[in-house]
Amino acid sequence: MRNLCLWVRYEGTKYHGFQQQCGCITVQQRLQEAVTTLTQHDTIVYGAGRTDAGVHARKQVVTFLTPSPLPLDRWCRGLNAHLPTDIVVWHAEESNHDFHARKSAHQKTYVYTIHNAPYADPLRAREQWHIIPPLDVTAMEQALLYVRGKHDFTSFCNVRSSVVSKVRTLHRAELCVLPSLWGEKGQIIRITFTGDGFLYQMVRILVGTLVRIGLKKQPPLAMFHVLKAKDRRCAGPTAKPHGLHLWDIDYDTNTVQKYE
Amino acid sequence: MRNLCLWVRYEGTKYHGFQQQCGCITVQQRLQEAVTTLTQHDTIVYGAGRTDAGVHARKQVVTFLTPSPLPLDRWCRGLNAHLPTDIVVWHAEESNHDFHARKSAHQKTYVYTIHNAPYADPLRAREQWHIIPPLDVTAMEQALLYVRGKHDFTSFCNVRSSVVSKVRTLHRAELCVLPSLWGEKGQIIRITFTGDGFLYQMVRILVGTLVRIGLKKQPPLAMFHVLKAKDRRCAGPTAKPHGLHLWDIDYDTNTVQKYE
Repeated sequence: MRNLCLWVRYEGTKYHGFQQQCGCITVQQRLQEAVTTLTQHDTIVYGAGRTDAGVHARKQVVTFLTPSPLPLDRWCRGLNAHLPTDIVVWHAEESNHDFHARKSAHQKTYVYTIHNAPYADPLRAREQWHIIPPLDVTAMEQALLYVRGKHDFTSFCNVRSSVVSKVRTLHRAELCVLPSLWGEKGQIIRITFTGDGFLYQMVRILVGTLVRIGLKKQPPLAMFHVLKAKDRRCAGPTAKPHGLHLWDIDYDTNTVQKYE
Repeated sequence: MRNLCLWVRYEGTKYHGFQQQCGCITVQQRLQEAVTTLTQHDTIVYGAGRTDAGVHARKQVVTFLTPSPLPLDRWCRGLNAHLPTDIVVWHAEESNHDFHARKSAHQKTYVYTIHNAPYADPLRAREQWHIIPPLDVTAMEQALLYVRGKHDFTSFCNVRSSVVSKVRTLHRAELCVLPSLWGEKGQIIRITFTGDGFLYQMVRILVGTLVRIGLKKQPPLAMFHVLKAKDRRCAGPTAKPHGLHLWDIDYDTNTVQKYE
């Protein structure tokens, strides 16, 4: 058996998230079907991040075992031929058998995009949260300082999560402002989080809390108090899923052996 | 009666172009329905550019006569409430009665986007033409030099066009290369045309001919020969509609009187 690793990007709009669920169409299911059609062998595809319904991915990493002898340079085109146009495999490599897309992940990066402008952008409506009132970007940047580092993120975790430890380390939590695509009034706010792990809906709850501060309903220091409260009810609402992108997954370079 | 002028952006994917046609859903039709619902008066909306099926617009300008006394600052939000999310009105002004979106237009700008990379981009698939083989951008830039200025563009006009004079002036015909959205292999090629008028499918046939040169099937000088031939059969294929954007319409500043 070979342990194959793929990099996959997708628009999550039409899917009930990455992970397979009964009766719903998921990205995992589409990938498994494509692998089965290409190789004539059933397989289970493991993803590095379990993106929610509507969330997109620039680089979702998946691994699976296959007896197929297909050469490495044939996997991307071969799978894309059997995938819908909103899922694209853009890299394939062969890994050691102890490498697992999720378990071997060292850190992950998520990017959330807000379109802060008077009018929506029809061409980007699927990938950014449109907010009309002007957001105070400086206040949002200050608030982000409080969540960097190692903390108990209980306040920023969906209460249905069954994870025991809610301590995670955010190595990066920052925002940048880009001009609006159309060169008119408004701004695009891009918020990047890199961490050793993320709790269920953690990025979206962080962004929802941040937007509450950007709207001046609370001062930047509120972020500190929400964090310390360890209570989901203290944080803001969960930001819409479609503004979120799973951006990157990092691995210890020693764990991936490339045969390319 | 008031002569109202709107700036409209839309994703053209789902529409059979801008102009109303029997039995097909068009952008013009959706705009007219929204105006009728908002004002309770039927109207005909005239657009500056008749974009084809699948073509998008950043700034389509439309004018229409209305007896409605609705204040100017209420039109955008009011119409957007009655429009599908892929059509957005982002500016409204009141004009002199002799102002007409199409007839008063001084020059128009179209932008065509090519995603030149090994793998498609699911999030941008609706707005850029994906071409896998690497294109020779320098050759394409050289070819563009031949079409700048005043020429008979018969070779770049769909044969079904009934326009008598095919002489137009291209003030601007240039391309720029942008990095791929995902920061990986590949490039985004953006080609901008500004002219006093455009023939039926002119931009798409220009781009199709340019791509043939970019693929090295012909040298840059071929553009000159195609232009001189005044024969549609000498030009390249018509580029896909979804890469095209109606970007801007310029008017003589004297013809628009703003009451904003």
